[in-house]
Amino acid sequence: MDEYINPLKSRYASKKMLYIFSPKFKYTTWRKLWYNLALVQKELGIDISNKQLDKLSKHIENIDFEIVKKYEEKFQHEVMAHLYAYADLAGDNARKILHLGVTSAYLTDNTDLIQIKEALLIIKNNLITFIKSLKEFSTKYKNLTTLAYTHLQKAQLTTLGKRSSLWLQSLIFDFEELNFILSNMCLRGVKGTVGNQNSFNELFSSNFEKVKNLDISLAKKMGFNKVYKVTSQIYDRKFDTSILNFLSNLSQSAHKITNDIRFMQHLEEIEEHFEKNQIGSSAMPYKRNPIYSERVASLAKFIMSLQSSGGFIAATQWLERTLDDSACKRINIPQAFLAADAILILLNKIFDNIRVNKTIIEKHVKKEMPFILTEDILMKATKNGGDRQILHEKIRIYSMQVRENLYSKTTENDLIKLILNDESFKLTPKDIDEVLNPNENIGFASLQVEDFIKETVDPILEKNKKY
Amino acid sequence: MDEYINPLKSRYASKKMLYIFSPKFKYTTWRKLWYNLALVQKELGIDISNKQLDKLSKHIENIDFEIVKKYEEKFQHEVMAHLYAYADLAGDNARKILHLGVTSAYLTDNTDLIQIKEALLIIKNNLITFIKSLKEFSTKYKNLTTLAYTHLQKAQLTTLGKRSSLWLQSLIFDFEELNFILSNMCLRGVKGTVGNQNSFNELFSSNFEKVKNLDISLAKKMGFNKVYKVTSQIYDRKFDTSILNFLSNLSQSAHKITNDIRFMQHLEEIEEHFEKNQIGSSAMPYKRNPIYSERVASLAKFIMSLQSSGGFIAATQWLERTLDDSACKRINIPQAFLAADAILILLNKIFDNIRVNKTIIEKHVKKEMPFILTEDILMKATKNGGDRQILHEKIRIYSMQVRENLYSKTTENDLIKLILNDESFKLTPKDIDEVLNPNENIGFASLQVEDFIKETVDPILEKNKKY
Amino acid sequence: MDEYINPLKSRYASKKMLYIFSPKFKYTTWRKLWYNLALVQKELGIDISNKQLDKLSKHIENIDFEIVKKYEEKFQHEVMAHLYAYADLAGDNARKILHLGVTSAYLTDNTDLIQIKEALLIIKNNLITFIKSLKEFSTKYKNLTTLAYTHLQKAQLTTLGKRSSLWLQSLIFDFEELNFILSNMCLRGVKGTVGNQNSFNELFSSNFEKVKNLDISLAKKMGFNKVYKVTSQIYDRKFDTSILNFLSNLSQSAHKITNDIRFMQHLEEIEEHFEKNQIGSSAMPYKRNPIYSERVASLAKFIMSLQSSGGFIAATQWLERTLDDSACKRINIPQAFLAADAILILLNKIFDNIRVNKTIIEKHVKKEMPFILTEDILMKATKNGGDRQILHEKIRIYSMQVRENLYSKTTENDLIKLILNDESFKLTPKDIDEVLNPNENIGFASLQVEDFIKETVDPILEKNKKY
Amino acid sequence: MDEYINPLKSRYASKKMLYIFSPKFKYTTWRKLWYNLALVQKELGIDISNKQLDKLSKHIENIDFEIVKKYEEKFQHEVMAHLYAYADLAGDNARKILHLGVTSAYLTDNTDLIQIKEALLIIKNNLITFIKSLKEFSTKYKNLTTLAYTHLQKAQLTTLGKRSSLWLQSLIFDFEELNFILSNMCLRGVKGTVGNQNSFNELFSSNFEKVKNLDISLAKKMGFNKVYKVTSQIYDRKFDTSILNFLSNLSQSAHKITNDIRFMQHLEEIEEHFEKNQIGSSAMPYKRNPIYSERVASLAKFIMSLQSSGGFIAATQWLERTLDDSACKRINIPQAFLAADAILILLNKIFDNIRVNKTIIEKHVKKEMPFILTEDILMKATKNGGDRQILHEKIRIYSMQVRENLYSKTTENDLIKLILNDESFKLTPKDIDEVLNPNENIGFASLQVEDFIKETVDPILEKNKKY
Repeated sequence: MDEYINPLKSRYASKKMLYIFSPKFKYTTWRKLWYNLALVQKELGIDISNKQLDKLSKHIENIDFEIVKKYEEKFQHEVMAHLYAYADLAGDNARKILHLGVTSAYLTDNTDLIQIKEALLIIKNNLITFIKSLKEFSTKYKNLTTLAYTHLQKAQLTTLGKRSSLWLQSLIFDFEELNFILSNMCLRGVKGTVGNQNSFNELFSSNFEKVKNLDISLAKKMGFNKVYKVTSQIYDRKFDTSILNFLSNLSQSAHKITNDIRFMQHLEEIEEHFEKNQIGSSAMPYKRNPIYSERVASLAKFIMSLQSSGGFIAATQWLERTLDDSACKRINIPQAFLAADAILILLNKIFDNIRVNKTIIEKHVKKEMPFILTEDILMKATKNGGDRQILHEKIRIYSMQVRENLYSKTTENDLIKLILNDESFKLTPKDIDEVLNPNENIGFASLQVEDFIKETVDPILEKNKKY
Repeated sequence: MDEYINPLKSRYASKKMLYIFSPKFKYTTWRKLWYNLALVQKELGIDISNKQLDKLSKHIENIDFEIVKKYEEKFQHEVMAHLYAYADLAGDNARKILHLGVTSAYLTDNTDLIQIKEALLIIKNNLITFIKSLKEFSTKYKNLTTLAYTHLQKAQLTTLGKRSSLWLQSLIFDFEELNFILSNMCLRGVKGTVGNQNSFNELFSSNFEKVKNLDISLAKKMGFNKVYKVTSQIYDRKFDTSILNFLSNLSQSAHKITNDIRFMQHLEEIEEHFEKNQIGSSAMPYKRNPIYSERVASLAKFIMSLQSSGGFIAATQWLERTLDDSACKRINIPQAFLAADAILILLNKIFDNIRVNKTIIEKHVKKEMPFILTEDILMKATKNGGDRQILHEKIRIYSMQVRENLYSKTTENDLIKLILNDESFKLTPKDIDEVLNPNENIGFASLQVEDFIKETVDPILEKNKKY
Repeated sequence: MDEYINPLKSRYASKKMLYIFSPKFKYTTWRKLWYNLALVQKELGIDISNKQLDKLSKHIENIDFEIVKKYEEKFQHEVMAHLYAYADLAGDNARKILHLGVTSAYLTDNTDLIQIKEALLIIKNNLITFIKSLKEFSTKYKNLTTLAYTHLQKAQLTTLGKRSSLWLQSLIFDFEELNFILSNMCLRGVKGTVGNQNSFNELFSSNFEKVKNLDISLAKKMGFNKVYKVTSQIYDRKFDTSILNFLSNLSQSAHKITNDIRFMQHLEEIEEHFEKNQIGSSAMPYKRNPIYSERVASLAKFIMSLQSSGGFIAATQWLERTLDDSACKRINIPQAFLAADAILILLNKIFDNIRVNKTIIEKHVKKEMPFILTEDILMKATKNGGDRQILHEKIRIYSMQVRENLYSKTTENDLIKLILNDESFKLTPKDIDEVLNPNENIGFASLQVEDFIKETVDPILEKNKKY
Repeated sequence: MDEYINPLKSRYASKKMLYIFSPKFKYTTWRKLWYNLALVQKELGIDISNKQLDKLSKHIENIDFEIVKKYEEKFQHEVMAHLYAYADLAGDNARKILHLGVTSAYLTDNTDLIQIKEALLIIKNNLITFIKSLKEFSTKYKNLTTLAYTHLQKAQLTTLGKRSSLWLQSLIFDFEELNFILSNMCLRGVKGTVGNQNSFNELFSSNFEKVKNLDISLAKKMGFNKVYKVTSQIYDRKFDTSILNFLSNLSQSAHKITNDIRFMQHLEEIEEHFEKNQIGSSAMPYKRNPIYSERVASLAKFIMSLQSSGGFIAATQWLERTLDDSACKRINIPQAFLAADAILILLNKIFDNIRVNKTIIEKHVKKEMPFILTEDILMKATKNGGDRQILHEKIRIYSMQVRENLYSKTTENDLIKLILNDESFKLTPKDIDEVLNPNENIGFASLQVEDFIKETVDPILEKNKKY
């Protein structure tokens, strides 16, 4: 309790995501990279015995961090420390075959990519779950008429399901970006000190096909289908930028969605689940605050801020690599994933138990109907031969007049009456009645939702069934 | 000369890009949107005469900005002002058929997307040109051995073409992102006030198929293959974020490339073209500064900074739309494109006339050879049966010793001699001779470049021949 | 109309601010810097005739931009071009005395600082005006009871003037930062090519006191009290960062203030002025959108995004200067000021005509009173000997129960009744009556406002009377 | 080892800084706030016994986190959980007097400010130490002539101490900003639920003087001289922005300084300390990489990225407070301090053992002298009556010619000869000799350093002796 505890770790992120970025995962991956390198080198003719490989294979998981620490104090070089510790376990000869032709970046850069891939897959999984949840929500409420707001001012009518279909669409954009990234992902592979695979010239007698083979075979053993054709010492840091961009984009969707929920909870139209014993405020016991939505918004801001570091690093990498990426990467990439993980957990939690207050929603719609009808009245009047611009102007003046009265006195909204009395509209009470039903004024909201889900969302869910 | 002049406009960007974001382009696009809307509506059965359409078509280009200004002073509403001015030209009845069922966002949002698409196509064109140029450069210098730098310290050898192939790869990533964006692009289409197409309920007798038809037909007439299936009043601002992300990513590549050039010009290995009469510095007449590269880096920083506004806007759009995107969008999206345009113009200019000082490059390589050979010596000694870790340590100590001497005295680099004298390396002068040729120490750099161009770059160029 | 028109220029910023960043202002400042340099050098003993100085003085304002352009095409060097054009006017000998011992940065860097200072003074002026306006607003409404919101949920009571006093406080912070910057501001001065004033060694016979004198005398003639004691070729770019930080901070205040206004306009409690003929929406004529507040928020986002470029530039300036600051600076510093200028103009405009709907505000307060009273009831009950935590829990349960009823049925809020009936509260109807008056439940809001204005705001206004 | 380990915690930051942001520090501060509130309330007449206070005082340090956890599971409210746990220790009656009139924000917001203040003091201390160190470095090397670089191109001469005095000046700017922040810092104080101190109306019989007294007395007991005169539920989040701005500004200085060091190490003019057994690269044993400087640059990028979250939060706080600040604040403010702490530790470490290679520096200067002299030659020739612009042009042409020869052939630099042979310069070999000494060409570099230290740095160090 005497040191800073990061709430991402202690409170928000899942065990699964925390593990991906743990020392355990990282250093066993290093050992896998050493082991598989030796394995592939043997396959390509280098003299490495099966016995040596067996020993290496056997000791992948049991890392003695105390021994590593001692070596690190000696060398002040993390990779060397782990290399010696691993070689000690695998027998003296191991040092000869381990790390053959490679440099630290072989370990660190490939591991970074492996961690990122695993983390993306967790995000993908949780994102699909949330997309399903929002699809259900949108379907369920596709017909529930509600006030739409533009400029945060009451505008016309929409449906709750239509509004949530827009959130869903934002997430579909994010999902497509995620797939774009995953399908283009490459391992850094076996490239040597400055990327030229020079150290393999000697080992493989200048045979480029063999070296390419080494590269792709290693990648496949580590779970990748592709390997960069060219790298410097490191993979292009633009890839990290693309990850931070994606996580920021996802956060923006989450921020927008929860902002909308916070407004609707303000309107009492919707409510986050509230535990029976939960205390909303120590001083205001009657309060029910949308704290999960607020937390999502807060974590989103954190992730969005990290984004700029990606570009700054990529833009200032000098020549074949500089190390001014390392400490920053090690802090912000894991945390961006941990926070994104937390956001999806929270979003799923919110929608698992969200409460929709239909009574309140209906009350709000009803109160605003006279104003809302003006667009329909305008359309009908235009159809009947009126000049849209003139009538628009008239309605504007009547509306302002009515609004003034509502502000200062306790009158009723008599806009409809004023319009009916104005002959230039050429409207009868029957015409008005035809447009008066709120459910008639949501346009094609419901059909749009159906169409969008059928044509866009369902095919994606079908293709990603396994998640 | 009495007002701020934006250098993007007066100095850096092309006429072509400046036109895309001009009032002329914008407001003729509005008229095209009005005209095509009427056209499609007629096709779908609305009573609009060919004569009216002809008049509208005829007046698309001749905008009288003075008249517009007068209307705007009256209404304080830009769209209304342009609507009246257009209608005036097309005859009184025009007001009845113009803007039928739509709201301002029909004009503004669709036009934004059309401008962005046109601007992306200019970028695509210039990017392809620069990719071709870098491909040629990489091919030309694929064998030119040069010092590689890690940590900005002399490392081992690479080739100039290999280094530039990494720049090329960065741009290929950007190009793929650009294509991803273009292939997913949708028009906002005809969606009405809050996105529900309610105003077309009446016009098209509740026929959703007709309304979808209206939407997609209009999009096609405006040059788009797709239209968003759902929108609020506006298209999802996440799209703008994706544009700013792309332009920032492109800028990061440009910043990295020109940083590298600036280093190489510092080393006198490479030089931007310098005009005969050009003055490098008013006080230091001998100077040749890489000013185009520096300008690219500067514009890149500008674009990268704009990126955060995309996310901020997307994340804080409330419910069906708020207007706190507008002023910011109108300033930063055009300028991000203008600056990216300028960057590509500058990059093409730099590489059209770049000078490579082979003599200097060779001199630098030669001087560093003893150190560089250590990796090869290590590989050879390991192959001869030496323990890599022990020999690495020995070389390290010898190197430090030699370096000390070089720092303080005026001695020669005698590292090779020290190694030959140490029996644990088991190396003969013949072994050393085998690794001594710089051209033998660039590994597979040249072959990597060929492979990368053949497998990755050429197919892309083939597919984009028309640019 | 064929080129991009920046709305900051065509729509938002003042003529005054636009002039500061105009070519006219910039290049006349260059001439003033040349003239005053010669003047000071003469005062310090350099052989320059009064006649020459007179000629230079006479031609400061009449810049022939055509001639400059021709020279620039020749030299590709902006400073040289202006130097020749100015010297041409002042007679042949002028070239000998102009630019004596200085480099381009003498012109560009000092002019940047002069422009920034002038722009800051305009901001200061408009900020003081707005502070006065907000002070009046806060004083006027210090007693107007209104619902406070936490988590955007109805909380307890505050007053409108108290709320606006928080906006005022934010601006006071900004104002103090502005003064901190202004009082620390230095001119870059006369420092030579790399900052060492080496070129004056010869001119002033190695007399450092004379050179320091030259530096500070020139600064004073240009309106500065201080000059940097050390610079490289340029002043430290951290200063530009501090400017962008300040403008971003000011924008954050403006964004927060206008967000609050937008909420209040949503609640119909407050309203931006709306012109009689103004059209709120082309499709929804009844709407009154807070478009000025939204524009402020939008411009604020723009400025905030520019902030990161400041740090990026300052952090990546190499050794005695690199030019990767220039293009970016020339775009973002002027625009940050133009946008900040626009924001203050808009804020002053909003508050000059803002409408407060007392009737609505009172209605909202009244409706929420039973809930709001719980804190007072709690305090009173605690004073009467109740256990705060137990009673808090009871009130929480009653409140949730009441809230449920309000959501689903059309009942009255009977919270007070439930509390009175619960003996553990030990409260009488008289106790309740004592806390029932809204005006009794705003605590010390009004007194806080008075105290804050008297102790903090008024002394600042007093000190800055001249603005 | 199964969870993410933040390197700020495991590797970079000091125990002292980690403690400030630990749960231990945070929750004991809560108890101090509760205890001191009761203490001050008693002093102001509230009926609280000494015995109760003694009990509270006694249990400040011994927090049983297990018990707290249980309460938190029950209430899902962190403050309530700690309140019950503390009250349990202090006896049943404690609940009646604890938390009297306050809300959660009393604990959380005041604690945030206390943590920030303590963290700033650690930064101040380490910054002063580093300023002293840089002062010594600058003094030591004030006369060591070295090549200055503009555009990363060899320019004229400066001294190493002059260059480092610019770093020092950057840090002085940061230090002044730090003092500005500290001297303006206020505690949030005792303000109640929405900032109106309403809950104290009853307790202190509407006596505002008493309530102000409560506020300032509590602040003083917690180590603050000032308290905000007005707040909402929380202190203005602009304060957090100012902290992130300051830490970003400091990082920019650190980034610039270490970039310069990395260049100089590239030139082999300067070198970070390198341990005897340290391994520079696992594949390139001869390397000495400036890894501490690179780490500083990396951490600086991290901090700079966090900056934008400050503005985003401050700008989007709605009305009397929203909770979308909390999670983000809890992650980025501590980490920004931890990273800044690490940066100062690293900077102090680098300069404690930095190595300056005078031999190399002198060699570089000597090689460039002919070019460098051109400015002096120009000054001398101008003094002798030459036309600066014409001679500048001539030197430019000669320089380019010499440079061409140096590029392509193995000639000597014969610029001086060319100039002497050109009669328009009116220069004798004696004139040239006078400007030929490098130590004569550093201008007033050395005197500037002395002047700057004496007039600016020393007074600051004197005022801050205790650090």
